[in-house]
Amino acid sequence: MDDDGRDRPPVPTGRSERARTAALEAALALAVELPYPQVTMEAIAARAGVGKATLYRRWRHRGALLVDAVAHRNARAAVGDGRIPDTGDLQADLSAVLRAVVDELAVPAWDALLRALCVEALVDTAVGAQVLEEVFAPQITLFARRFAAARATGHIDGSVGDVEAFELFVAPLFHRWQLRTGALDHAYADAVVRRGCRALSP
Amino acid sequence: MDDDGRDRPPVPTGRSERARTAALEAALALAVELPYPQVTMEAIAARAGVGKATLYRRWRHRGALLVDAVAHRNARAAVGDGRIPDTGDLQADLSAVLRAVVDELAVPAWDALLRALCVEALVDTAVGAQVLEEVFAPQITLFARRFAAARATGHIDGSVGDVEAFELFVAPLFHRWQLRTGALDHAYADAVVRRGCRALSP
Repeated sequence: MDDDGRDRPPVPTGRSERARTAALEAALALAVELPYPQVTMEAIAARAGVGKATLYRRWRHRGALLVDAVAHRNARAAVGDGRIPDTGDLQADLSAVLRAVVDELAVPAWDALLRALCVEALVDTAVGAQVLEEVFAPQITLFARRFAAARATGHIDGSVGDVEAFELFVAPLFHRWQLRTGALDHAYADAVVRRGCRALSP
Repeated sequence: MDDDGRDRPPVPTGRSERARTAALEAALALAVELPYPQVTMEAIAARAGVGKATLYRRWRHRGALLVDAVAHRNARAAVGDGRIPDTGDLQADLSAVLRAVVDELAVPAWDALLRALCVEALVDTAVGAQVLEEVFAPQITLFARRFAAARATGHIDGSVGDVEAFELFVAPLFHRWQLRTGALDHAYADAVVRRGCRALSP
């Protein structure tokens, strides 16, 4: 996480903050409407009603803006906003989360936007670090809270770290989504959670 | 797998086959030497000593050639060439394989080449399908053979499919490699195998 609060849901208070939010919303809207190569800084500036120079003062390039836009969207969305539910049944709670992720990835525009994000992260190490910090770290924090509760009640092996446990559940979905090795549906999400919980059992 | 034998180690018998092998070797050599944007069809043709038209007759673009080059290299390398060892100890056998993968990914040139491959697969669905068929399917086949032996001796749950089982071991490495969520070392490979075997235990 960074120290200027970019990973928290923005509360537009000043002119600069309003311009920032407008740019992020414009980037998301355009990424849903257009093929990614057409989502240029120019197009985003026009849609947001701000100057291109304003965008470049805050973001080095489109990739950096895109990461912020996805983090902004996650912070507002249900999955990224609150805690992972804790009904006392870790498997059921994580199944609900992973099913929601599967549903999101089935939306073509969101799928395309996240693939574009992966490309930006792969071609530019700095963007990759930004994706880790702004998109994945907040998710890991949410999972870590739920894992802490499961550890406290003796439902999972206390020796497995949060990132490792997170990867047990998220990595198979990420791999299957990116490489299209098979159906990415609720049944798969449930099976991943079942096997992950089994791997973590004390 | 396809039906013209592209996934088997090539045996250069004719002039066309020799030109193909030369192009694949040239692409690999250049990808190790140069930043990926400089690994152009022109540069590959020059290094291979063939005409650019010869390359384009076989490959639509650089991405398609690159996938073939990686598949060609895997077919020759130890990991991709033979079977996964079967000492009767699934955890030890898979740890050896995943440690070898970790060692490969630690080689900067190979890391860069595989990141370029991921980008090509993400931006072009046809290349993505080619990566799945030529790079991942042969690996899944090797794992499936080892899983079959483990099922026969009652070491793993018979209800989990080969692709799902493969993903338990490979997806966490892929995720950690691509997103740099933590150290990608032998200890991590061993931990992934330990948890994967646990998830698969009957």
